[in-house]
Amino acid sequence: MRRTNKRSRRRAAVAGGLDIQLRKGNGCPLFMQVHEQVVDHIAAGNLTAGMRLPPVRALAQELGINQMTVARAYKDLADAGFVEGRAGGGTYVRAPSGAGSRRLRNLQNPVAEQPLLSERLFDLSHAPGVIAFTANFPALDKLCINEFKACIEAAMAHDVASCFHYDPPTGRPRLRQQISDYLLARGIISPPDDIIVTSGAQQAIDLVVRSLVPPGAPVIIERPAYYGVINALRTAHARILEVPLEQDGMDIATLETHLSRHRPRLIYTNPTFQNPTGITASEEKRRALLVLARKYGVAILEDDHNSELRFAGEPIPSIRALAEPDDSVFYVRSFGKVFLPGVRLGYVVTPSRTRRSLLATKAHSDLHTNALMQEATALFLARRNYQKPFERMKKAYGVMQQKLIRSLSEGMPPGTLIGKPEGGLSLWLNLPEGTEVSELYYRAVRRGVAFISGEVFYASHVNPRTLRVSFGSMTDEVLAEGVNRLCSVANDLMRPRGALNAIFT
Amino acid sequence: MRRTNKRSRRRAAVAGGLDIQLRKGNGCPLFMQVHEQVVDHIAAGNLTAGMRLPPVRALAQELGINQMTVARAYKDLADAGFVEGRAGGGTYVRAPSGAGSRRLRNLQNPVAEQPLLSERLFDLSHAPGVIAFTANFPALDKLCINEFKACIEAAMAHDVASCFHYDPPTGRPRLRQQISDYLLARGIISPPDDIIVTSGAQQAIDLVVRSLVPPGAPVIIERPAYYGVINALRTAHARILEVPLEQDGMDIATLETHLSRHRPRLIYTNPTFQNPTGITASEEKRRALLVLARKYGVAILEDDHNSELRFAGEPIPSIRALAEPDDSVFYVRSFGKVFLPGVRLGYVVTPSRTRRSLLATKAHSDLHTNALMQEATALFLARRNYQKPFERMKKAYGVMQQKLIRSLSEGMPPGTLIGKPEGGLSLWLNLPEGTEVSELYYRAVRRGVAFISGEVFYASHVNPRTLRVSFGSMTDEVLAEGVNRLCSVANDLMRPRGALNAIFT
Repeated sequence: MRRTNKRSRRRAAVAGGLDIQLRKGNGCPLFMQVHEQVVDHIAAGNLTAGMRLPPVRALAQELGINQMTVARAYKDLADAGFVEGRAGGGTYVRAPSGAGSRRLRNLQNPVAEQPLLSERLFDLSHAPGVIAFTANFPALDKLCINEFKACIEAAMAHDVASCFHYDPPTGRPRLRQQISDYLLARGIISPPDDIIVTSGAQQAIDLVVRSLVPPGAPVIIERPAYYGVINALRTAHARILEVPLEQDGMDIATLETHLSRHRPRLIYTNPTFQNPTGITASEEKRRALLVLARKYGVAILEDDHNSELRFAGEPIPSIRALAEPDDSVFYVRSFGKVFLPGVRLGYVVTPSRTRRSLLATKAHSDLHTNALMQEATALFLARRNYQKPFERMKKAYGVMQQKLIRSLSEGMPPGTLIGKPEGGLSLWLNLPEGTEVSELYYRAVRRGVAFISGEVFYASHVNPRTLRVSFGSMTDEVLAEGVNRLCSVANDLMRPRGALNAIFT
Repeated sequence: MRRTNKRSRRRAAVAGGLDIQLRKGNGCPLFMQVHEQVVDHIAAGNLTAGMRLPPVRALAQELGINQMTVARAYKDLADAGFVEGRAGGGTYVRAPSGAGSRRLRNLQNPVAEQPLLSERLFDLSHAPGVIAFTANFPALDKLCINEFKACIEAAMAHDVASCFHYDPPTGRPRLRQQISDYLLARGIISPPDDIIVTSGAQQAIDLVVRSLVPPGAPVIIERPAYYGVINALRTAHARILEVPLEQDGMDIATLETHLSRHRPRLIYTNPTFQNPTGITASEEKRRALLVLARKYGVAILEDDHNSELRFAGEPIPSIRALAEPDDSVFYVRSFGKVFLPGVRLGYVVTPSRTRRSLLATKAHSDLHTNALMQEATALFLARRNYQKPFERMKKAYGVMQQKLIRSLSEGMPPGTLIGKPEGGLSLWLNLPEGTEVSELYYRAVRRGVAFISGEVFYASHVNPRTLRVSFGSMTDEVLAEGVNRLCSVANDLMRPRGALNAIFT
């Protein structure tokens, strides 16, 4: 709705005279246009914390649109943390904090200025005296490393000339063949041509997002979800929709509501030992996801980060294994979370019809991945000498996981919920009501123990009482001492607050 | 300007009733809005080849905007190849061909379905019997490779544990220190903290573009320019503005016009032995670029792909070396075009204030680059054993370049223009009027010789008579035979056409 300039000039002062201009028939639903323009006004400083948005009825009338449309825009704005309904009625701009403010900072300055999580994690894991429950990847197995060294030497002896030449973006044929064989043993039929080698799973996720999701398009993720996918989606200017996780996978009803309302391009899911919650989606939910994806013509990005690390229960087929060949399921993996941490090799199994556009995005991102590492990894897979050390390592981590669950259950404050996943190298904790993980975090680091605060796993409406405790790269003694420190800090945190409550209530 | 639905329904039939809806005060200039919406109509099939756009005056009146605004939008549309002015007056939609149609295909389907250039190049360079003038990187030097093998072995012997762990996105301190030392010797003062290690120069370019350029924002490149940057910009949904290259660098007058009109975010330049033309920008033009960048507050992305490969003339300082420390100059390099083809290691020297946002983009793209390759390359630089073989290789390529220029000048059809760059591994050729490089290309491949058709180096308005002939990875005998084949095909191409002209004129 166009306004006169005179009126536009007034908009900064009067939220009630909000300047919203709608364009019909451009493919962007009206409620999204309202949503985006309110965010623009907040980013531009025209709307500041505490200002009241026009009442739904008034704005709808002024714009000549349905009240439901405005109500839905306001609801989305509240979900994203930009505004809040108040008890006395009315919708008000929130003080910039949490996810809304992060998104706002992103709008004003595409990438926020705070230290990067990956830098913080690295610093923590190398800080003297700090026991860091941050590594969601296995410790270096000496036998595996020696095996990989031997593979690099073999690759250099045989293929060094071909490794110092520019490659096509697909990845080395030998490695793709080995991956194809490896996947076949796990129930996934994928010809080598449908495999694209990437620089780790993070790049595979980024490529799928960049290929499929134009700026502003909606994408569904689990809530909470791996921060790497949230970051990739933000960098691609996607609109993130979160679907809560239940004990057996995504809440299917909310998923379908989002699908029918927002028509997203992509559903990202991490169905086995989900990062961060450890939840494994049931086969029923996996099948339900496929049915919905077909119904709404949406692609699935399945991130299978470490399904080999199962300590209990029966393996569940991957979504890619359950899918029909022509289903739009992208299956993403890396070698870093199971065998070779830090090697930065991953891959994506792509539906044939999207192979070419994914390859183009790969080529435009970094041409191709280092050839020598690919040849060495192909040999590593072919020789299969990793199997014995891997089985031993898996057993050790299974024992460690049980020990960690037991000692945290005994030591953490009453009311702490501790996830009990069937595999993977992380536990997900919910602190009791009234605690804030940010406070725990800063006290913990001062006491020489660190973990990952849950906030990085939410795209909106952060749950301030969650944390991820990871036990990759850890010995038994260090683990016991780390648990002692963590539990002691957490119990300290509870006590004064309890005392305070006793006084004031 | 909003229309009724009834009128909107008619817009497909009547270009004169073009549905354009402008939004003021959203930061997007009106002429760009007109431009983008006309392109949308073409993409949607509402406007088809041969249809006339509304006269400038009529559309301006209808939209209530200045005639100059409409005229400017039409000019940009014509520059991008979407429309054309006709002699009898009026602006008409062009038949989809050339860059406009490529852009159109990109709009309809983000990435075109044709085989990727990198795949074609790889296939050509490995096709039996085909002499491929396609490698713009040096041949594998045996001594260099053995030296790099020794470095990998040394890195594995000392650092293998630290190489199998997740790293922060910056890159290894040892490698950044070596790069800093290397650059200092070339007049560039860059502390290791301002260096970010990337997976080749292509990723460095992609990261700078993603950090600085929001979707739809204008970016200036040289015309012609390296296809890698054109692809990265298209993937980022940037709006590409081309500035013609003169013999001593960019046409500064056109550059300033673009800067003042479009307020771009970024200028990409490849000032030394430019890919594809071989042109080296003079020091005056480099300084002029810096002055303009400061005046208009625009960042410079300087791609220095192979300035070490100078065969004649005096070195010219890089723009980064000429700049003040706080100038917004991103300096991008890789190790692939000079020492270690295919190793996929590059770096960007970033202004300190943009370091953090670039690092975040790197982390969100692929977390970090393979650590073992970084350690090996750090040793490779530290040991300096590459210097002697490099000098020998450079001398050999200098002789080869002169030979190639001489034999092409003698053998190609009269009227062929051949660039004579002072360094680098490519020559840029302009065929005589009346020839088409696409025809030459298909005949050439059938005769067992290949080159890179110039069309990939243009973002719009392809010059159909240009080609790049590269002589990296080539021996003297193969070069002579390749030139024979190429000249013979080119002369064949001229003859029948000459004969035909003689008959019909």
